[in-house]
Amino acid sequence: MPFAPFDWIDDEARRRAAAGLVRALRPRSAEAGLLDLASNDYLGLTRHPEVTVAAAGAAHRWGAGATGSRLVTGSTALHAELERELADFCGFEAALVLSSGYAANLAALTALTGRGSLIVSDAGNHASIVDGCRLSRAETAVVPHADPDAVAKALRSHDGRALAVTDSVFSVDGDAAPLSALAEVCRTANAALVVDDAHGLGVLGDGGRGALAAAGLAGGPGTVATLTLSKSLGSQGGAVLGPARVIDHLVNTARTFIFDTGLAPAAAGGALGALRLLRREPERAASAREVATALYGRLTAAGLTAVRPDAAVVSVRAPSADAAVRWAADCRAAGVAVGCFRPPSVPDGISRLRLTARADLTEEQIGTAVSTVVATAPREALVPLS
Amino acid sequence: MPFAPFDWIDDEARRRAAAGLVRALRPRSAEAGLLDLASNDYLGLTRHPEVTVAAAGAAHRWGAGATGSRLVTGSTALHAELERELADFCGFEAALVLSSGYAANLAALTALTGRGSLIVSDAGNHASIVDGCRLSRAETAVVPHADPDAVAKALRSHDGRALAVTDSVFSVDGDAAPLSALAEVCRTANAALVVDDAHGLGVLGDGGRGALAAAGLAGGPGTVATLTLSKSLGSQGGAVLGPARVIDHLVNTARTFIFDTGLAPAAAGGALGALRLLRREPERAASAREVATALYGRLTAAGLTAVRPDAAVVSVRAPSADAAVRWAADCRAAGVAVGCFRPPSVPDGISRLRLTARADLTEEQIGTAVSTVVATAPREALVPLS
Repeated sequence: MPFAPFDWIDDEARRRAAAGLVRALRPRSAEAGLLDLASNDYLGLTRHPEVTVAAAGAAHRWGAGATGSRLVTGSTALHAELERELADFCGFEAALVLSSGYAANLAALTALTGRGSLIVSDAGNHASIVDGCRLSRAETAVVPHADPDAVAKALRSHDGRALAVTDSVFSVDGDAAPLSALAEVCRTANAALVVDDAHGLGVLGDGGRGALAAAGLAGGPGTVATLTLSKSLGSQGGAVLGPARVIDHLVNTARTFIFDTGLAPAAAGGALGALRLLRREPERAASAREVATALYGRLTAAGLTAVRPDAAVVSVRAPSADAAVRWAADCRAAGVAVGCFRPPSVPDGISRLRLTARADLTEEQIGTAVSTVVATAPREALVPLS
Repeated sequence: MPFAPFDWIDDEARRRAAAGLVRALRPRSAEAGLLDLASNDYLGLTRHPEVTVAAAGAAHRWGAGATGSRLVTGSTALHAELERELADFCGFEAALVLSSGYAANLAALTALTGRGSLIVSDAGNHASIVDGCRLSRAETAVVPHADPDAVAKALRSHDGRALAVTDSVFSVDGDAAPLSALAEVCRTANAALVVDDAHGLGVLGDGGRGALAAAGLAGGPGTVATLTLSKSLGSQGGAVLGPARVIDHLVNTARTFIFDTGLAPAAAGGALGALRLLRREPERAASAREVATALYGRLTAAGLTAVRPDAAVVSVRAPSADAAVRWAADCRAAGVAVGCFRPPSVPDGISRLRLTARADLTEEQIGTAVSTVVATAPREALVPLS
């Protein structure tokens, strides 16, 4: 037999090609070419001079890397400062910074559960939450999207430690979770509530303090938030926020924290710079929401089907995966970058264009984006206006 | 019932305290205080001006963050450049950069296996490999440490797709895996071989090209390497190296790649700067190995029990977890930072001091390190010399 342990990969590649589902990397240049409505840079901070100077300064002062696990040599005073300011800003007792939001979700879900416990997870939750459930060895009940009654029912069925987990804002459709109802359900069941505020931080709540602050739930004794530093804060990394004892527990037990190198100083510095800028310019949060509302209003007025945005993501329905890919390519050819979500990255098999409403988009840029998306729309995506 | 979903955490904290196994963060200042033999900065590059300038320059040029998934807006020409140069340096066809070595192992192990396939995993493998096995839904056979016959036997027992996975250099004891024998076993069984070269890159092989290059296995049709950019390359991030079709497959299917924000430009830039420096100064790799040999020779000559180092990690046996903690604290009080590994971070329950042999340690610093470790050693750690 010839030695060919990866031949099966070619078969899978052929199947993907036949289904029109091939993904390829398309590296961009440093120069701003396209009008960006595809990134998660909601507040337009990743290239803000204050943020890049903070990132670069941290690399000069602390080195290019953290040099080890946060438990060995990888914790710097910069990490501690970022953790204090993040916790304070979002209204939690303590925070722990990890190398990504993905790692933060794996850490929280594995460390706060275990064999014999139950995780109740929304069907629309992000892949990192799904993987956290899989890694946790807990029993996982996946419940219908945004359905507190289903969460309550699942929690009632279990005797022992339990938590419910949800995105605050779902990445694909940009809709918000019913956090107040979920918190009430968890309180009744003596269950913890873990909320991934990746798309809420910087956009929702007073001055961008996030979805939990907006719902009056930040800092609660049973509430844990996970965050990313790579969206509104324009950098890289993730964090877990919660009661101090939860954070201490993660330091002692969370494998993706203990066995990972600490976040690079430049990423911690960049995120801290962005956080301080947001504190000084809290109106950026409201601007992102207003841009989203404007995009939604004009796209639906033109006959497209979109989800009313609860934060800064505007999801526009496409007739098929093929059509979505062509539509996004046509937008790109016309100078506008938009996201294209299609199977297997969507929970329901429906393909979408995904537009992100950056706080710093000008009225003219909003107009250009809308006219481009509408002009390139497949005919089936446009509802005839009466 | 009072709402107290996290009360169980206090019980666990009390148990840890009673067992002397509490971990706490100890943020360091920016100023070099201690003599560092605890970090994984094997080549002494994380604060090298060329590397920090490359990191800072990338933040200025590209922004503080990648702004999205590598499949949306998160791929830059800088990522592509780093991937080309990493693959070329290590002797592989292609490379894919992720946000951490942890993410790289999860990506490789989940994307290259699946239900019905088998992973054969060394009992001493790193936590990120263990978690990759758990996430993969493959059957996992954990085999005794560094035992190619056991790997062969496990592979023979399985009908269908299979791979073996091992660290190249084990983090706890610094010993090397029997890569040539493992490759032969895999070839016979038509199984792939995945090697985590976190502690080999920059230290082993000609000019630091890594353990797979050293064994003549780089670029093989069934060989995949995972790397970290946060040890010898002084930055943050991870990578998977292998045949181009394997890398394409990961781009299309690896969840920790697809659903994560791309590596921050500063981290990619810092790693690329370090890689280019290493190409220009290949003697750094040999220096790290020589420092390790010197540390080992002098520590064992003084009566301590250590593992003969295969790379740049020197592991010294401690009589107990408590003694190891005190020993490391005494070293620290005397100005020398060393690692302290104890349960649950060690596979065999034996506590150790872990010294890393930085390539840039001077003869005087080596002397200081050895005399400090010996002077602070618990009596039981010292074998009386006849």
